[in-house]
Amino acid sequence: MTKILGHNYIGGRRSAAGNVELYSVDASTGEQLPHAFIQATQAEVDAAAQAAAAAYPTYRSLSAERRAQFLDAIADELDALGDDFVALVCRETALPAARIQGERGRTSGQMRLFAKVLRRGDFYGARIDLPLPDRQPLPRPDLRQYRIGLGPVAVFGASNFPLAFSTAGGDTAAALAAGCPVVFKAHSGHMATAEQVADALIRAAEKTAMPAGVFNMIYGGGVGEWLVKHPAIQAVGFTGSLKGGRALCDMAAARPQPIPVFAEMSSINPVIVLPQALAVRAETVARDLTASVVQGCGQFCTNPGLVIGIRSPQFTAFVEQVAALIGDQPAQTMLNAGTLGSYGSGVQKLLAHPGIEHLAGSPQQGNQAQPQLFKADVSLLLNGDEVLQEEVFGPTTVLVEVADQAQLSAALHGLHGQLTATIIGEPVDFEQFAELTPLLEQKVGRILLNGYPTGVEVCDSMVHGGPYPATSDARGTSVGTLAIDRFLRPVCFQNYPDNLLPEPLKNANPLRIQRLVDGKPSREAL
Amino acid sequence: MTKILGHNYIGGRRSAAGNVELYSVDASTGEQLPHAFIQATQAEVDAAAQAAAAAYPTYRSLSAERRAQFLDAIADELDALGDDFVALVCRETALPAARIQGERGRTSGQMRLFAKVLRRGDFYGARIDLPLPDRQPLPRPDLRQYRIGLGPVAVFGASNFPLAFSTAGGDTAAALAAGCPVVFKAHSGHMATAEQVADALIRAAEKTAMPAGVFNMIYGGGVGEWLVKHPAIQAVGFTGSLKGGRALCDMAAARPQPIPVFAEMSSINPVIVLPQALAVRAETVARDLTASVVQGCGQFCTNPGLVIGIRSPQFTAFVEQVAALIGDQPAQTMLNAGTLGSYGSGVQKLLAHPGIEHLAGSPQQGNQAQPQLFKADVSLLLNGDEVLQEEVFGPTTVLVEVADQAQLSAALHGLHGQLTATIIGEPVDFEQFAELTPLLEQKVGRILLNGYPTGVEVCDSMVHGGPYPATSDARGTSVGTLAIDRFLRPVCFQNYPDNLLPEPLKNANPLRIQRLVDGKPSREAL
Repeated sequence: MTKILGHNYIGGRRSAAGNVELYSVDASTGEQLPHAFIQATQAEVDAAAQAAAAAYPTYRSLSAERRAQFLDAIADELDALGDDFVALVCRETALPAARIQGERGRTSGQMRLFAKVLRRGDFYGARIDLPLPDRQPLPRPDLRQYRIGLGPVAVFGASNFPLAFSTAGGDTAAALAAGCPVVFKAHSGHMATAEQVADALIRAAEKTAMPAGVFNMIYGGGVGEWLVKHPAIQAVGFTGSLKGGRALCDMAAARPQPIPVFAEMSSINPVIVLPQALAVRAETVARDLTASVVQGCGQFCTNPGLVIGIRSPQFTAFVEQVAALIGDQPAQTMLNAGTLGSYGSGVQKLLAHPGIEHLAGSPQQGNQAQPQLFKADVSLLLNGDEVLQEEVFGPTTVLVEVADQAQLSAALHGLHGQLTATIIGEPVDFEQFAELTPLLEQKVGRILLNGYPTGVEVCDSMVHGGPYPATSDARGTSVGTLAIDRFLRPVCFQNYPDNLLPEPLKNANPLRIQRLVDGKPSREAL
Repeated sequence: MTKILGHNYIGGRRSAAGNVELYSVDASTGEQLPHAFIQATQAEVDAAAQAAAAAYPTYRSLSAERRAQFLDAIADELDALGDDFVALVCRETALPAARIQGERGRTSGQMRLFAKVLRRGDFYGARIDLPLPDRQPLPRPDLRQYRIGLGPVAVFGASNFPLAFSTAGGDTAAALAAGCPVVFKAHSGHMATAEQVADALIRAAEKTAMPAGVFNMIYGGGVGEWLVKHPAIQAVGFTGSLKGGRALCDMAAARPQPIPVFAEMSSINPVIVLPQALAVRAETVARDLTASVVQGCGQFCTNPGLVIGIRSPQFTAFVEQVAALIGDQPAQTMLNAGTLGSYGSGVQKLLAHPGIEHLAGSPQQGNQAQPQLFKADVSLLLNGDEVLQEEVFGPTTVLVEVADQAQLSAALHGLHGQLTATIIGEPVDFEQFAELTPLLEQKVGRILLNGYPTGVEVCDSMVHGGPYPATSDARGTSVGTLAIDRFLRPVCFQNYPDNLLPEPLKNANPLRIQRLVDGKPSREAL
């Protein structure tokens, strides 16, 4: 492990001009850890954004292969972070070592997957319309389109994925792949982790001769506002609360030049349990669902926060099974005191609501989160009561019993946008409830059949997004290779001679990428 | 021509609940035309948005082929609008008949091009990651992604393209292609035109059995605000002024659920005239440039509003040539009194600025626009003076002389985002000024060499977009087939059996579209 210095990363140098010292804490004991981190001053935030802006023209013009080499080098550096690094992350987040080892692999895997995307070349979106000099009444000029990085991107680290959605996480990987330098705002919950990963990233940047300023990192509370308002920043990636994400969106929209914000915020991830599934495998469903609810202390964006079933003796029995299982789950340590505090408030709000019944779980107190099970009256969904629409981040879920198939649809219609929806059923259920898929498609980014929403595969087909308030822009995803699209914009060249065109658009197709030529996909030279 | 009724179009019916009557005027004489249009009430705007929302589940679920047939039918209906229709449009806009005939063909051509895109199927963005049941430590589930329409889209008609950017124009075509029902706000400058086109569109919808509410149209001033704030509306397309577009963006961002706004707003479209081009063909450049400036009375988004050259005797001679040509151009009638008024104010602002010299043009007065030529001191660009960044909509351009190559770059760095930039040069110029292309790429959506920015080809490769304030979102285009992307969002299916998957994702690939399967493009069945 490299020494933890606690200074901000600006244009390839370290900087500590401020005098506010921050400390992260041992998430299990609350004990302050020894390393001091110096909160960035406004001048340092400005310098970081300027460093990214200075790196942008060079970085975006590098070949995709060069950027792929950079991402591969980051992946190698991440994989080389050893046991002492894992121990440090565990200490800052209270997450178990196996999880952190897995997350490290996921994070380096993400980098390598984006390197593949860069080599595949489809991210360029290359399109060519050849000239039609004899067309009447007017000739068509030569027109060619590809996509370039938007410019410097501000990324905010997530509390719950100290690696995969933080310093070198998904948003950073997507932005760097797109050709956008990054200014990363480290999460206060794992600043030492952030520093170790930033060091790894900087080593990779140096090994692959990237421009200074391709990656910058700042520490501090409130410094994110300066960053989002900085004129050099051209887009924002964020994973966190609805309140925090919405505040960034509002700031970005109010800038003299508004910029896009891709905020992944709040989702209760409904799970619909259909009758025949309960008839044939209620116990398995109860067990797997409970495991998904308490996995990682419920600290996943895709944690199932709402379970809906149709009134029947089988559903009543299922509810009892889940209650028994949740009642048996041990308390777990959360990521930090703030998260635990929010969880306590969320649970309290559910307990205090007259339309909600508490079915299982020990009283929430002390330093750990107690898993909880609630049952809400369906009227809360039908009337759009906000208490059921708000994510309670932690090991809690709410059951809702609907009267019949029609009420199921009505209840789902009342839901806000979600990251995921899950249907648990047998083939006969899917036939009977055929309306569910088109209905849920309009509400979510990912629909699962007979699976559980926790566990988000990083691949080409993944969508970790969805209508508001799941995210601020349903057209994006923050997991999977489509995430790169958020940070690209098209540029068209008209009547350019071959020698002046960028590589992806040259006649010879030197990159051997697929292009849309006169409306047909082709890898041929022209 | 159908009879002009002047009622709003809501869910396949006509509605005139309000009591505010609006009239369009003969753009050449200012005379009020006979047809009354009834401004939509807030209840009617609500009903129009609800009608679009009601149509959405059915319309978005239609096969791409069915939607393509609808677009083709619209195109046929547009082509069938005859001479009396052309005369009506000319009367409302003062645009010449040949231009309107051409624009009619462009508008039907756009519809047919989007029908092609629907049949091509690449808009689906189909991606499939096949399951890896034996992967360690965890199996990979079956994951498949495609894109669906966002939901009802509000479209605002443009003043300057009564057909191609209005009722059945580019934004409407892109939204309908994407599977999004449209609520169209007719422009007050050509309401009779709008009604004729809406009738054509409704005929096509009926012939192809589209759901009522797939297209709705409302008349009135101020009604757009209700529309943009309506919870059923999921995106906005707009072409018009920076002030108007920004107001819509701010409204959309402040909604409980923020929605994307694609506003094409303000661009001065710099033209850079390089030394060798002036040495060998100054006269031709002066003539072609002047023609582009006054074409269509300068009422194009891509009108060249800024011309930059390097100080030299040749540039001085060129300036004199352009001044002589502009001085010879006749006055032209503008689209409407509002446009003429804005042009007058814009010209006045240039005349009043101490750093700007008036080179040619008769005093602006009367009912027509007088072409004007100005020359501004380079310091205005270097210091970011707002007067040069604002589009003066009409037949006016501003010349700027820079001292040398370095000052040219500095001046271009100071520009805001633009739709286009144009370089006029010879091969030796391109070699000497190689820094221009990467610099301009960061500023604009389209770069032209030795052409003129007016005349925007509708094709796959076109980008009619660019960084703010040219548009509100540089990631989109409002001309060309990529425009459909603005109104699509991805959805992922996890662990879905083949029979429940949408057609584009089924194993057999019944649509024969190209899909990204395990990272490789393929048209094969699985």
